[in-house]
Amino acid sequence: MLAAVETAIADQADIVCFGELATTGYPPRDFLEFEDFINSSNELIEKLTEASKDIAIVVGAPRVNPVAEGKDLFNAAYFLAEGEVKHVYDKCLLPTYDIFDEYRYFEPGSNFEIVHYKGKKIALTVCEDIWNIENENPLYTICPLDQMMPAKPDFIINVSASPFNYNQADTRIGILKENVARYNLPMFYINHVGAQTQIIFDGGSLIMSPSGKVFEEFNYFEELQKSFNLDEVIQADSENRQNKEKIEKIHDALVLGVKNYFGKLGFKKAILGLSGGIDSAVTAVIAARALGPENLRVLLMPSQFSSDHSVNDARQLAENLGIQYDIIPIESAFKTFEKLLETQFKDLPFNVTEENIQARCRGLLLMAMSNKFGNILLNTSNKSEMAVGYGTLYGDLAGGISVIGDVYKTEVFQLAEYINKDAEVIPQNSITKPPSAELRPDQKDSDSLPDYDILDTILFEYIEKRKGPKEIIAMGYDEKLVRRILRLVNISEFKRHQTAPVLRVSPKAFGMGRRMPIVAKYLS
Amino acid sequence: MLAAVETAIADQADIVCFGELATTGYPPRDFLEFEDFINSSNELIEKLTEASKDIAIVVGAPRVNPVAEGKDLFNAAYFLAEGEVKHVYDKCLLPTYDIFDEYRYFEPGSNFEIVHYKGKKIALTVCEDIWNIENENPLYTICPLDQMMPAKPDFIINVSASPFNYNQADTRIGILKENVARYNLPMFYINHVGAQTQIIFDGGSLIMSPSGKVFEEFNYFEELQKSFNLDEVIQADSENRQNKEKIEKIHDALVLGVKNYFGKLGFKKAILGLSGGIDSAVTAVIAARALGPENLRVLLMPSQFSSDHSVNDARQLAENLGIQYDIIPIESAFKTFEKLLETQFKDLPFNVTEENIQARCRGLLLMAMSNKFGNILLNTSNKSEMAVGYGTLYGDLAGGISVIGDVYKTEVFQLAEYINKDAEVIPQNSITKPPSAELRPDQKDSDSLPDYDILDTILFEYIEKRKGPKEIIAMGYDEKLVRRILRLVNISEFKRHQTAPVLRVSPKAFGMGRRMPIVAKYLS
Repeated sequence: MLAAVETAIADQADIVCFGELATTGYPPRDFLEFEDFINSSNELIEKLTEASKDIAIVVGAPRVNPVAEGKDLFNAAYFLAEGEVKHVYDKCLLPTYDIFDEYRYFEPGSNFEIVHYKGKKIALTVCEDIWNIENENPLYTICPLDQMMPAKPDFIINVSASPFNYNQADTRIGILKENVARYNLPMFYINHVGAQTQIIFDGGSLIMSPSGKVFEEFNYFEELQKSFNLDEVIQADSENRQNKEKIEKIHDALVLGVKNYFGKLGFKKAILGLSGGIDSAVTAVIAARALGPENLRVLLMPSQFSSDHSVNDARQLAENLGIQYDIIPIESAFKTFEKLLETQFKDLPFNVTEENIQARCRGLLLMAMSNKFGNILLNTSNKSEMAVGYGTLYGDLAGGISVIGDVYKTEVFQLAEYINKDAEVIPQNSITKPPSAELRPDQKDSDSLPDYDILDTILFEYIEKRKGPKEIIAMGYDEKLVRRILRLVNISEFKRHQTAPVLRVSPKAFGMGRRMPIVAKYLS
Repeated sequence: MLAAVETAIADQADIVCFGELATTGYPPRDFLEFEDFINSSNELIEKLTEASKDIAIVVGAPRVNPVAEGKDLFNAAYFLAEGEVKHVYDKCLLPTYDIFDEYRYFEPGSNFEIVHYKGKKIALTVCEDIWNIENENPLYTICPLDQMMPAKPDFIINVSASPFNYNQADTRIGILKENVARYNLPMFYINHVGAQTQIIFDGGSLIMSPSGKVFEEFNYFEELQKSFNLDEVIQADSENRQNKEKIEKIHDALVLGVKNYFGKLGFKKAILGLSGGIDSAVTAVIAARALGPENLRVLLMPSQFSSDHSVNDARQLAENLGIQYDIIPIESAFKTFEKLLETQFKDLPFNVTEENIQARCRGLLLMAMSNKFGNILLNTSNKSEMAVGYGTLYGDLAGGISVIGDVYKTEVFQLAEYINKDAEVIPQNSITKPPSAELRPDQKDSDSLPDYDILDTILFEYIEKRKGPKEIIAMGYDEKLVRRILRLVNISEFKRHQTAPVLRVSPKAFGMGRRMPIVAKYLS
């Protein structure tokens, strides 16, 4: 941050802006309950205050509530200038839904004074504060900018931590346009870039003219610093938009998510199991792009139920990517466990137990490689199978981070096609063959699940749209099928509770944004 | 609930009371976002309304907010009588900390009218509403009972969902006494009994006289229905208290927690690995008491590093409990994996990888038994090792529910002594020998961790009391040790993220009440 301040000074900027809770990262979660942690953030604000002698600095940080009544902290935006704290604005609208827990920590602000600086008046706001235009958002009863308008500000600054999902950039621009249309003021919207485990901040900071034109839309998934001339922003009358399709956005978000998860943990190397199927193939490509092919290692672990083409497809992919691969057949391990359990299992028939033993032998081998060589295991499960519990806990559900756990199977196919758009990276056979776990002879996903087109639509209606069984059945789906799928989702909660954090790319991902009981009777 | 209404009518009661959100269970979590789920609860309220022709029914349930502005729901207490909804009170103080997420779903109530029924005036409140006496709780700015007092109520009803921790019963009685001292009114305090996965409701409903005497303290951890005569409560002048020590409370809570986890999932049988150590021994005793010894099965899985006495201690415990046990040595499995990985591992020295392979072979065998016979695997890790990451993901950290994951090692010893108070259930040798994971020759926990007395104190200061390193060092602990332990806690967050839900018995348990970043630089 101090380096960015230097750059801004060299650029002759008057103000340099950072995002929401920039001193702590967003979200700091229960670290906020540690006085020692807040002290560290305050020390950073002191350093930035000292650095503000030749430039104004806008920076988000937690602020201790000086009053005993109410929560201990505010989610504040500091305005630092001339080596002093010139102004502090406390966020008023505190999102407490999906992945957001702000009311757990913060007291809503109620002071709507504006900032006076170098002859200009600035309406300084934090993220959600601009999301209640004309009080039409039912969650809130106050519109902070409406409160500030009597003071006649010259422009608006909003410091945000607005996480990515594949709809979010369009939603954000829509919200900014509505604000600008209402107030006729230039808007400087600053968003974070980078992933914190599950949550991916896509950047895309925005500068908007008072006429509602996008003067600048920052590149997404990329850290950038730029300076703007207020007069130019005011006069702008042409629209400068980025243009990315949904699947490209998801791809770029996942690459950033993997890259930052490793970078922030201080790890470089990943490992995963390549089955020859499309899920592990797509995961491997994303990992290779995030970490470099030299940092990805894969295991091919055929069993007696694996088809030859699976091993060939996996090997072909590894060669296409230029990644190190080892082939370790698991039959001897499987047989050892069969033998160890023969007294207990006697003549009981082969069932899901034996399927799970195979998956867990693979999980064990991958984790052994992970432990020995320091490669983090990547989970390769997709959202459709995570939803219905089609996966083995401690087996193929193992891993430090779930790369495509928020990507439905039908979207995984789209990702594979996007990856192959210029050249065949993923062998076509991995894409076209019928999906199979290959854990028993001639097994196909379609033996136990409906077609993914149908499954994914029903899941989307239930998970993303929160429709109940009656509403989904009324859309024309078979009642028995709908009830079976919804039941599978609910009874698989215990599995999802124990799986890796999932990179979030949709408006409703498994994980911290979807909090479900594990023991419950509803639809189960 | 309908049966309880019948019983109350047979008792000639005027009012029958159920707990907070009794129609949905507490907490219903994101089910509350499903219209279909709310409709189900409303149907239940309709049925109870019909059943209220001959008795008044007080029952907690979500209520749809009729106004567009604000959250969609209230956390309400219905007063049903004469076949009608006579009154609805909406909870005003919404806990949003630790395990509580109420502001995620509910709008705070702001109507403080009281109930008129059979010539009496009733102050009806929900749980947290009575926890802001004289506005001294800094979290809130309203005291609902203060608002109701001008209407001169005759008594107070509070319907609660107040989860157990080993301090909570005393805290609750203290709060009730303060309320009664302030208002001089009889208090009827109704709490839930039973566990919802991690959260254990201990019951202990309370009837208090206007002079502040405990007229009745319901048995803890037991579903009970009793009728009381208001005049007798008013005139009561002697105190009737239960008396349980902390360790007995924890024991009883864990037994109920295990019992309800299985009962609510529709499972009967458990499995776990007995190592001969104290953690698995205590877990086994609790499971046998919760489910019956006939429903518990254990595996003894010695490796080449296991001592003879470990197997003997484990066998002795199994015999003392009368539970089925099998001995399955894991050496052949371990050797199979060594062989499978010899090309990759070459001559690299034995390290934590090989320790983890052993733990995962055991996890695999336990899960195979679980899958084949329908026994849920119980996790046996204690809070001290969960805290510092001393355990193998997908190995000894596997399991459907963590029984003692909120019990520090020093408390596990106390539990073992409590269990053995009348007769030796747990072999004394399991209690007295130095703790060891037995994953390499002559390994002891003390090789890599400080004495548990010291470790647990530092962990308690950090986890329960949220003190920072400086404050803990100032208590007299070695700086290097403190920093090392706090770092271990923080960098092990990725493991805890993937482990089973932990039965909560302390004021700060791992799980939904402690939400920490996985990638973070703070103290790591």
